[in-house]
Amino acid sequence: MSAETIEFWFDFGSPYAYLAHRRLPTFKAATDAEVLWRPFMLGTAFTETGARPLLDIPMKSDYAKRDLARLAKHFSVPFHMPVNAPTVTLAAARIFYGLNSTDPEIAIAFGRSVFDAAFAEGKDVSDPGVLGACIYAVGLEPEVLSLAQEQDWKQALKDAGSAAIAKGVFGAPFFLHDGEPFWGVERMDMLMCKLTADG
Amino acid sequence: MSAETIEFWFDFGSPYAYLAHRRLPTFKAATDAEVLWRPFMLGTAFTETGARPLLDIPMKSDYAKRDLARLAKHFSVPFHMPVNAPTVTLAAARIFYGLNSTDPEIAIAFGRSVFDAAFAEGKDVSDPGVLGACIYAVGLEPEVLSLAQEQDWKQALKDAGSAAIAKGVFGAPFFLHDGEPFWGVERMDMLMCKLTADG
Repeated sequence: MSAETIEFWFDFGSPYAYLAHRRLPTFKAATDAEVLWRPFMLGTAFTETGARPLLDIPMKSDYAKRDLARLAKHFSVPFHMPVNAPTVTLAAARIFYGLNSTDPEIAIAFGRSVFDAAFAEGKDVSDPGVLGACIYAVGLEPEVLSLAQEQDWKQALKDAGSAAIAKGVFGAPFFLHDGEPFWGVERMDMLMCKLTADG
Repeated sequence: MSAETIEFWFDFGSPYAYLAHRRLPTFKAATDAEVLWRPFMLGTAFTETGARPLLDIPMKSDYAKRDLARLAKHFSVPFHMPVNAPTVTLAAARIFYGLNSTDPEIAIAFGRSVFDAAFAEGKDVSDPGVLGACIYAVGLEPEVLSLAQEQDWKQALKDAGSAAIAKGVFGAPFFLHDGEPFWGVERMDMLMCKLTADG
């Protein structure tokens, strides 16, 4: 197991984090560092910074919709904004931490499935039926859905929010490598430069 | 004169806009489009979007200082944050519009001088003495400083703020090319791709 890690902080409701997760394989070319997925509720950080959800901000939301479509095309990635965006993704994140406690690889497979349901297919991942399909897609039993109601994973998600703020994470996607912060899908190139230079 | 134009919207107080202006020459390799400088008061747009100056935002300001130093190093550009940042740059912008009304090239030379005084040298460009040195550096007479007090250029700057909002410009640097918006120094690469593909 690699000693080196990249922390990937995000909210399952962030369209820019979706694009970032699609670009994670590019890191593999530069590093054998392990990518640790760290979903958190972006709203928690927003209470610290006074920010609002992107899609609720005048002017900026119109720009973001156009920019996201443009970036997705540039990266050759499918993209559809969910009809109910911005989506509350508490359940998906709690299930992630439940799965992660025993099998991080399965948790990441589930996470990819959630991101793709939301932003490749434009589905509402706050809907238990949609989450159930994500669970099914990665070969897990339907009972996994109930992890979202368990106190341990509710607490794990709260703890992740506190840890994010303690680490200076205020947006998504947000990467931490060796203490250095990289905010936004457009800073992945700079992180790549760092990984290549270090390697 | 080229029919094609790139509008470069910015506030002289924006450190990311400073980095962008240093990278403007890269456009010349891809296009003979004319870059039209459009300073405006970013605070005007912030009243529309509810945003605050970057350096006043908890967590984000610490990140931005680190990110700016990193980007400047990456672009091999000198960078010093002005001690009084965020700087009010009303006078510099009014003088720019005064000069621009008769000689856009001189106005841009003055603009470059202001950006460099602020962010290469870390000086306070709200100080008339510093602005006077910028005026002197581009070979103009000291009287140019008084353009900052003339009603025409006060109005020109207000009009620029209204035009920015009408065009959906909410941040800096912000580029418009053929109706397409590009926000941030990191979207200059995407604009470059577009210019190269169009050319």
